[in-house]
Amino acid sequence: MGNRRLIYLPLGGAREVGMNAYVYGYGEPDNERLILVDLGVAFPNMETTPGIELIFPDMTWLEKRAERLEAIFITHGHEDHVGGIPHYYGDLSAPIFARPFTSRIISRKLSEYGHSIENVQTVLPWPKQIEAGPFKVSFLPVSHSIPESSSLVINTPVGRIIHTGDLKIDLNPVVGDIFDNANWRRVASKGVHALVCDSTNVFSNRFGRSESELISEIESLISRSNNLFVATTFASNIARIKTLACAGKRVGRSICLLGRAMKQMIETAIDTDVLRDFPEVIRPEDAHNIPRENLMLLVTGSQGERRAASAQLARGKYMGFELKKGDVFLFSSKTIPGNERGVLRVINQLSEKGVDVIDDSSGLYHVSGHANRSDLEKLHKLVDPKIVIPMHGEHRHLQEHVKLCEQNGIQSLLAVDGTMVDISKNKPFIADHIEAGRDYLDGRVIIGALDGVVRGRIRMALNGLVAIGIVQVKKPQISFRCDVTLIGLCEFGKENSLKDILCEEIIASLMSAKHHVLNKHESIKDLVRHVVRKTVSFELGKSPEITVIVNSVC
Amino acid sequence: MGNRRLIYLPLGGAREVGMNAYVYGYGEPDNERLILVDLGVAFPNMETTPGIELIFPDMTWLEKRAERLEAIFITHGHEDHVGGIPHYYGDLSAPIFARPFTSRIISRKLSEYGHSIENVQTVLPWPKQIEAGPFKVSFLPVSHSIPESSSLVINTPVGRIIHTGDLKIDLNPVVGDIFDNANWRRVASKGVHALVCDSTNVFSNRFGRSESELISEIESLISRSNNLFVATTFASNIARIKTLACAGKRVGRSICLLGRAMKQMIETAIDTDVLRDFPEVIRPEDAHNIPRENLMLLVTGSQGERRAASAQLARGKYMGFELKKGDVFLFSSKTIPGNERGVLRVINQLSEKGVDVIDDSSGLYHVSGHANRSDLEKLHKLVDPKIVIPMHGEHRHLQEHVKLCEQNGIQSLLAVDGTMVDISKNKPFIADHIEAGRDYLDGRVIIGALDGVVRGRIRMALNGLVAIGIVQVKKPQISFRCDVTLIGLCEFGKENSLKDILCEEIIASLMSAKHHVLNKHESIKDLVRHVVRKTVSFELGKSPEITVIVNSVC
Repeated sequence: MGNRRLIYLPLGGAREVGMNAYVYGYGEPDNERLILVDLGVAFPNMETTPGIELIFPDMTWLEKRAERLEAIFITHGHEDHVGGIPHYYGDLSAPIFARPFTSRIISRKLSEYGHSIENVQTVLPWPKQIEAGPFKVSFLPVSHSIPESSSLVINTPVGRIIHTGDLKIDLNPVVGDIFDNANWRRVASKGVHALVCDSTNVFSNRFGRSESELISEIESLISRSNNLFVATTFASNIARIKTLACAGKRVGRSICLLGRAMKQMIETAIDTDVLRDFPEVIRPEDAHNIPRENLMLLVTGSQGERRAASAQLARGKYMGFELKKGDVFLFSSKTIPGNERGVLRVINQLSEKGVDVIDDSSGLYHVSGHANRSDLEKLHKLVDPKIVIPMHGEHRHLQEHVKLCEQNGIQSLLAVDGTMVDISKNKPFIADHIEAGRDYLDGRVIIGALDGVVRGRIRMALNGLVAIGIVQVKKPQISFRCDVTLIGLCEFGKENSLKDILCEEIIASLMSAKHHVLNKHESIKDLVRHVVRKTVSFELGKSPEITVIVNSVC
Repeated sequence: MGNRRLIYLPLGGAREVGMNAYVYGYGEPDNERLILVDLGVAFPNMETTPGIELIFPDMTWLEKRAERLEAIFITHGHEDHVGGIPHYYGDLSAPIFARPFTSRIISRKLSEYGHSIENVQTVLPWPKQIEAGPFKVSFLPVSHSIPESSSLVINTPVGRIIHTGDLKIDLNPVVGDIFDNANWRRVASKGVHALVCDSTNVFSNRFGRSESELISEIESLISRSNNLFVATTFASNIARIKTLACAGKRVGRSICLLGRAMKQMIETAIDTDVLRDFPEVIRPEDAHNIPRENLMLLVTGSQGERRAASAQLARGKYMGFELKKGDVFLFSSKTIPGNERGVLRVINQLSEKGVDVIDDSSGLYHVSGHANRSDLEKLHKLVDPKIVIPMHGEHRHLQEHVKLCEQNGIQSLLAVDGTMVDISKNKPFIADHIEAGRDYLDGRVIIGALDGVVRGRIRMALNGLVAIGIVQVKKPQISFRCDVTLIGLCEFGKENSLKDILCEEIIASLMSAKHHVLNKHESIKDLVRHVVRKTVSFELGKSPEITVIVNSVC
């Protein structure tokens, strides 16, 4: 093999739950042939990324090496694994491999953005192999919270890598693939060099539970209601939607889906034949004729998203439906950390309508799609790799996963985004650190996280803004006009209108300023900024953002 | 009693956990003599209240009736019960009654804001009574997470009210008062008309646990560490700080407090004699000479607050201390809903330093200060009131508490902020709804929540801002100058600088505009706004906030 090496380089997903993008390479240093596993997004929040649509891993490193990229493999159809594809389509022109359901999701996304879908290739599962330069890759079906999730079996000249993707060990999932122990044993039997492994639930000490355990409890819950029953979960959790719908049907309710994402996902799942025997659903316009106690709504918005069906039902009417006292609303979902405030807003609004809200706290109506701690240990044992590299987690998850490995005597390494790990030998080591930041989709433009755009927004949000227009009239003698606009600031100072005070102070300062100050627009601006800062601080106790425009006329 | 009535009116705290302020009144309708219980704040967040310092209940209703206000009673020293006092000091000039520790906290706050403390009156606990118009009020000691918490026993011409304040049933607290069953039985023995009751933990099905159960687990945790041990909790949780300090002492560590709030609270507790036998602490400057394995830091910032000691230690150095691989950081606290993101930021930063972070998930290192569901039921039984009115909770808590009462056959009523309840009879009813919004402290100014200030900030944060200065020069012929400033927007459009494109488009539109448009500044502004909106939408896909300043010169 000469001086060839096998490298692993997470660009996203190994410091956050989201924006997954993992590079593997094999070849001479700085000339490896590359594959990319997943290309997902993360979601913004008001605190750190106001006004942003989506967050991407910074793909610059890979874009610069695009000619060495053999293929992109997508493990499953969740946004944090596929969402980035249409946005980096032109820059990474490699073929994209995915199983049928995932492939359909990707193609729909590409089409929505006006891209061709010719690069998308639909593949059969393991033992079918795809050749990609020095790599041979198979999609090994696993159970997760979306159909056709797969681990990747990546055969390399150094040995076999298993990249788990997102998975749980479910021997009886409602929809999609089971975790097939026999297949995994077969894959592991010839020896596995490295297991690159999901870390999401490493802190969950509970025993992992099967999706199939939910239906009887949910059925019993619905049967206890004599009013409208509404349930929400992730739109992509086809198994859960089926569980909910079947439970509703069993107790004699008509099922109606609300929310574009959910309808689209169900259609895709039926079209690609991963969803069978889904109960008949009725259209919203027909649902209005059904007595409330015979109706069940399945709706989007389990994370409190403001525009989703749940939030709209909580605020008022949605598609003609209005919730009333005694109706039941089930969150068949877990609140993702950081979304608590939005979810609680929806719950309290529903509570104000007299709706009975039931959440995940009992543990009866939701199971996770990720392997819990004990299942991770099982997986380590089953695969028995030389190396485990934790991925898919915040730093705390990765560190805990490394600790778990060390406790069990397994070689492991903590590698966050941007850490290039040489895994050619039995002991992995860090070969390089590359810049691995984040990009933002803002409107339709991609900007860098450090461009200052978001920083400017956050500063305006915290401090408010004063915009001042100054016109310096030079003849017959020097005079000034001043216009002040306030946004996000109290209009009144201690006694008078803040605008009036500011104009007065600014003009007084300008009139008494020295000649050389007034000769340059920059020094006029500095003077105005100084006056505004001082005045607003005195009047309101705030330090606003300030923008000054100066014009001189004769 | 003629047509006199007894009313209960929450102004804050009965739709949120925070900004507690409850009015009781007795007398002829619209002429009742009033008392206020608590005057607290709520805390802002970036999502709904960016740049705001504090949130207050709207006190307008009470300010207008200030001459009927007999007294203010403060149940305990938490910010959500005392934080509003200095800000409404002048407008509500009634005497403020509190027990010594709370009274000291209030006086310190008033002094910080330059107010006199002459209205603050320190009182003895039950059975001592304070007369306030038609009311006779006693402070009945209870256990909670700050010393000297009290329920109020309010004797009225109609009967006895117990206003619980915040409480838990702890028969063995480490510091401060126990929940004294015998005293409560005595208070309840003559019959209680209404129990106005804490709802915070109504969803907690676990059995409430005593503060004293923690020390052995914490001691054992510290003894397993051979490195620096850091623990955080609420600065006001004197009992927990004592537990932590004693546990550290027992295993031979020197104790050092970091964070102004914590030092202040401990001093206040020692001065007012509620804290005794607190271990000797060392100064930060002396702590540097102690070997790490013999040192324990107690620090502020359990909620991930950016400026607190925890967050600063997580980011880098704080007062010369720097955490290292193998150090242990204990969150002896619960994350308040909504603070998850900030707390996780701190945890991940600590994790990146290699620090072992231990949180509340095991249940071994924290107990709540509020009565759990089963304890609430105990309390209902013990007091056996005619009416229970839930308070101190979001809508979902209040509703659940009402349900709990109904299940147990207890008369109850859901009254959110602004609901005036007539509790003169055995069946409460809603007598009126008053406007009960929120006020914000912004800088040093109090503004209304609906004033539009915060809305303007949020819009700038989401959309970015374009500020345009136009100068219309009328002679010798009409021409225009245009200056553009962008804040929080990408500087580049599809091909060129966005500023350049905007200036070009604006001037072109103005030059081709009809005469009557150019005659008025307002119509020029409208035209400019239209052009900016269209151009930025085309170039970036954003709808920015726009401010235009127009000047004409001859």
